[in-house]
Amino acid sequence: MNSCEWCNYKDSKWLIYKSIYWSVYLADVQDYVGRCILVLNRHCECISDLNTLEWIDLKSLIDQLEQIYKEVLGAELCNWSCLMNNFYKETNPNPHLHFHVRPRYKNPITINHHSYVDVEFAHHYALKKEPVLIAEDRQVLFEQIKSHFKLKVKSVDILLSDSEVLRE
Amino acid sequence: MNSCEWCNYKDSKWLIYKSIYWSVYLADVQDYVGRCILVLNRHCECISDLNTLEWIDLKSLIDQLEQIYKEVLGAELCNWSCLMNNFYKETNPNPHLHFHVRPRYKNPITINHHSYVDVEFAHHYALKKEPVLIAEDRQVLFEQIKSHFKLKVKSVDILLSDSEVLRE
Repeated sequence: MNSCEWCNYKDSKWLIYKSIYWSVYLADVQDYVGRCILVLNRHCECISDLNTLEWIDLKSLIDQLEQIYKEVLGAELCNWSCLMNNFYKETNPNPHLHFHVRPRYKNPITINHHSYVDVEFAHHYALKKEPVLIAEDRQVLFEQIKSHFKLKVKSVDILLSDSEVLRE
Repeated sequence: MNSCEWCNYKDSKWLIYKSIYWSVYLADVQDYVGRCILVLNRHCECISDLNTLEWIDLKSLIDQLEQIYKEVLGAELCNWSCLMNNFYKETNPNPHLHFHVRPRYKNPITINHHSYVDVEFAHHYALKKEPVLIAEDRQVLFEQIKSHFKLKVKSVDILLSDSEVLRE
């Protein structure tokens, strides 16, 4: 059995948000602007091995991402996938559950004064596509998405503090 | 706004299972043996518009399908996706939420005495791949998957009748 890269992953440079069960990273390969990867915090091989709390938490992260992609970045739709193929190139696969999301844009999206066009819009995402986003724009995009996740957490905090006020 | 093909869909020839919230069909295009499509019974545009009951019910169908693919058909893993791209080819898109699942096989799978090889195993599923399954094998495969879904329902029935016995 190979050791698990995701279980050993410590780099939080591109970590947008970490919930109890999942970590959301801005993907290395920005072939589609805003592409993220949602990684389960514990080792688990497939969707059917997720428990109900992990599944429900995943939905709340999907809800947040879809809202940010559509309302902040202007995406039309999102392509979600859970494939896991690469792990099976190994003789003894040791898959770690994760989801990919690629927001898809009908209109050009502007990041840091640069315009990006989703040339495959309304078609399947291209395989082995080169990243389109330049390094400094990736940093700007990261901060933009992360700040909106923060707002969400803040609103939950307010909700919690409100409920505490009500209880007093 | 276009009328919705999935809302108007009445053909149950390839319907494997219908839950309260979802319908599971054996896909027309059997590019990967056992490929299915899970369609929400009501019109809904994206994952974030699903309610919690629909999301939890989806998980129970995923659980059943992954178990059947692995234990009955011998699949190694499953590729799940929710893309929705084709709807956006229309001027006024009217997307209806659905998921695709492609079981992936390390070893050849035999259906009705014919052997099928997943030539792209451990790689991304091929785009625009022609169906591999011949018509009569598709029927056999359909009955095989459907019969295992029935067993599941049966076991739930037994559980319910057991609980009724306990209550008497």
